[in-house]
Amino acid sequence: MDSQHQSAGRLRKAPENFLDPAGVRQVFSEARKGRRDFIRNAFAAAGAAAAVPLARAAGNPVPPTGGDANILELPEHSKGLGQPVATDGYGKPSKYEANVQRRRSPGLTQTTQSSVSFAPLQSLFGIVTPSGLHFERHHQGWWDIDPSRHRLMLNGSDDRIMRKPMVFTMDELMRLPSVSRFHFIECGANSGMEWGNVAVPTCQYSHGMLSCSEFTGVPLKLLLDMAGVDYKRARFVLGEGADGASMTRTLPMALVESGEVLVAYGQNGEMLRPEQGYPLRLVVPGVQGVSWVKYLRRIEVGDQPYGSKDETIHYVDLMPGGLHRQYSSTQECKSVVTTPSGGQVLLDKGYYNISGLAWSGRGKVRRVDVSVDGGRNWRSARLEGPVMAKCLTRFNMDWVWDGKAALVQSRAIDDTGYVQPTYKQLRAVRGSRSIYHNNAIQTWLVQDSGEVKNVQLS
Amino acid sequence: MDSQHQSAGRLRKAPENFLDPAGVRQVFSEARKGRRDFIRNAFAAAGAAAAVPLARAAGNPVPPTGGDANILELPEHSKGLGQPVATDGYGKPSKYEANVQRRRSPGLTQTTQSSVSFAPLQSLFGIVTPSGLHFERHHQGWWDIDPSRHRLMLNGSDDRIMRKPMVFTMDELMRLPSVSRFHFIECGANSGMEWGNVAVPTCQYSHGMLSCSEFTGVPLKLLLDMAGVDYKRARFVLGEGADGASMTRTLPMALVESGEVLVAYGQNGEMLRPEQGYPLRLVVPGVQGVSWVKYLRRIEVGDQPYGSKDETIHYVDLMPGGLHRQYSSTQECKSVVTTPSGGQVLLDKGYYNISGLAWSGRGKVRRVDVSVDGGRNWRSARLEGPVMAKCLTRFNMDWVWDGKAALVQSRAIDDTGYVQPTYKQLRAVRGSRSIYHNNAIQTWLVQDSGEVKNVQLS
Repeated sequence: MDSQHQSAGRLRKAPENFLDPAGVRQVFSEARKGRRDFIRNAFAAAGAAAAVPLARAAGNPVPPTGGDANILELPEHSKGLGQPVATDGYGKPSKYEANVQRRRSPGLTQTTQSSVSFAPLQSLFGIVTPSGLHFERHHQGWWDIDPSRHRLMLNGSDDRIMRKPMVFTMDELMRLPSVSRFHFIECGANSGMEWGNVAVPTCQYSHGMLSCSEFTGVPLKLLLDMAGVDYKRARFVLGEGADGASMTRTLPMALVESGEVLVAYGQNGEMLRPEQGYPLRLVVPGVQGVSWVKYLRRIEVGDQPYGSKDETIHYVDLMPGGLHRQYSSTQECKSVVTTPSGGQVLLDKGYYNISGLAWSGRGKVRRVDVSVDGGRNWRSARLEGPVMAKCLTRFNMDWVWDGKAALVQSRAIDDTGYVQPTYKQLRAVRGSRSIYHNNAIQTWLVQDSGEVKNVQLS
Repeated sequence: MDSQHQSAGRLRKAPENFLDPAGVRQVFSEARKGRRDFIRNAFAAAGAAAAVPLARAAGNPVPPTGGDANILELPEHSKGLGQPVATDGYGKPSKYEANVQRRRSPGLTQTTQSSVSFAPLQSLFGIVTPSGLHFERHHQGWWDIDPSRHRLMLNGSDDRIMRKPMVFTMDELMRLPSVSRFHFIECGANSGMEWGNVAVPTCQYSHGMLSCSEFTGVPLKLLLDMAGVDYKRARFVLGEGADGASMTRTLPMALVESGEVLVAYGQNGEMLRPEQGYPLRLVVPGVQGVSWVKYLRRIEVGDQPYGSKDETIHYVDLMPGGLHRQYSSTQECKSVVTTPSGGQVLLDKGYYNISGLAWSGRGKVRRVDVSVDGGRNWRSARLEGPVMAKCLTRFNMDWVWDGKAALVQSRAIDDTGYVQPTYKQLRAVRGSRSIYHNNAIQTWLVQDSGEVKNVQLS
């Protein structure tokens, strides 16, 4: 890295927070200066007028440089040898991206083992979440479990409901027919703080318990078939994790019989990360993250829901009348604008690409509408393909900002026809004492200063 | 990590090469032992016969454990607190996956800066290549270029062919309309050593200059429109990199006008990695990797191909008569079985999932056939969705191995009807003195010992 560091040292100090407000402002001001200088110098060198090309031949390129650098001085990276290829290695992001991290909200939870770290949605592109930035939610911390010791057991609640109880090694599971599918995972508590009108500052904290990956594994149905399950009686499945929390969740057998539920070991091309349940987890498309049991060690089938602690005490929705909803596990249609979003700064009037994510636990996203006036007028956004069921969909929309305050919103519609609700609509049904399953329309206020804030329209 | 390491220390030493032959053998033998012990102990504990369930209730789970561990002894990870969530962080793979790396082939190139490291295809799932394992190919090493100083210049070969030459900062580019698309990138020299019948041992070295990502960026056509290009005259585009190699490649304007060519900054959700051209590269779907110019600093448009060093001296195909083909940049339809593949070991007879990758620079993969007898009989594989144009497609096929020697092959057909050729067919046209554009059918010999070798059928 020597020549590289040397080079950086000779130039102005690099912003470490690229894409964050301070860094963006610095880049922007240097860029404008650099651009003017560059063009002025180029014209001086060519002794020419505005319509003259900046460089004349491929054989004699003029390297683009910015700021106060002389355009005739090539940067180090255009002159010297760079870093070698990896002899054995696993790559890392640029040092200029060091600020793009998952982050914990101090004080949100009493311990750091039973806690959350949020994915930096405001800095991400497309739909794939890099595994290093996938949100984390643990009930007692994460483990790096030795896959050679890990087992998956299948059993029934009695001896007729599953005729051949089985125990699988990882090696045995990985020899079986596998499928690969793109799906989002969202914690049921995502956007939970917004119920209380907390208006956390950034999209990372308001919506960052959301990620999307390509998962690879074996359909759970196939394993249950091998184990001789009596599907007439076995109407529920219990998944159990191997970590100290012994996370246990009931799934309806109908979901398993659809073939969608996977016993997964692969995520974005490689083995699951330890924070995501290495070496084995459930993938339950469309259903809240807590049901995607990590460190999966056991599957039981039975004829009744199990009513485990993790579905009766936690992950229930307190309703206005004081009753609560249980087993409300499907993540309803939802969307969020990630650019511009809270904490970002628009540096000047003019064109912006409004970009965001939409998803539905019921199927595909059919349409996303975007408003810049708090929901009075809507325009349909471009959806990036492929649009997949129970998967994130990236949307983009052109916007020319006039420099005045604007209220930016997105509203997703899924292929069942369901329309993402306003807070007013959601609260009319659910009240305001809930933690889970907030899928209301998010509003970002772009102030005339360009600074973007989280606000909640009633 | 204390309690975790303590736990590992008390058990047998963990295999560090999980999924590699030595590790697999160890896992397999421990698993069989563990499984027998587990079942024996479970039955002893229950005092019961074979049909009795292994566990009776969710409230009193029997943790699956393996090897010589007592089943009544819970592993540490089922008792203690694990690791905390990231306060600020970027995650890493499991320590048990340390062997899954991109690798350089010593001696293949004279320097490590102008060299290659190969992606470990044999250990990957699905179609997304984790950015940390994306293959590397540099002509003078990689750089981590300061994005605040980086510029993209657009110019024409004369002053009428582009009316408004422009210079963009990264900030300016990232405000423009963006698209996100999944595409493979393959080095034109991938499988090059096979031309010489070298039969490198693993699929990592034979096919590992291949990766696939979701790219995000601005269509180059949009930038050329902004710059006022005269498309009647501007029929060719030159892309130029900022690294010392000054990589320059010509693209036909027709490709750019299709809207497929991107000026990309995003890859798999985050900014490009330094090894992949951070902060800006060309994405030229279906075309060999060298044209995806990294560290992109300049685009010139002209009315003729540029005939740069990187397309006249290098990346040409020497034909049997001594002439060479130039500008043969589209990657023709190709496939490879990644499991089982060279260096892997089948540990026992029985069911295996044959899995691999197929792709075409012309469009979508229509079908993949798999043979286990060297091409005499073929069966069609299952294609995992979504099948996307100029993107990897994962295929899977059931196979029950009888324990006898087998010749495993795959043959892809794309939506133009083109069929991946045998070596005999390819050599009839191309001879055997080429380096680039080898898309012949790959053969893996499964020996009766279970060991898999690279062989070339004439």
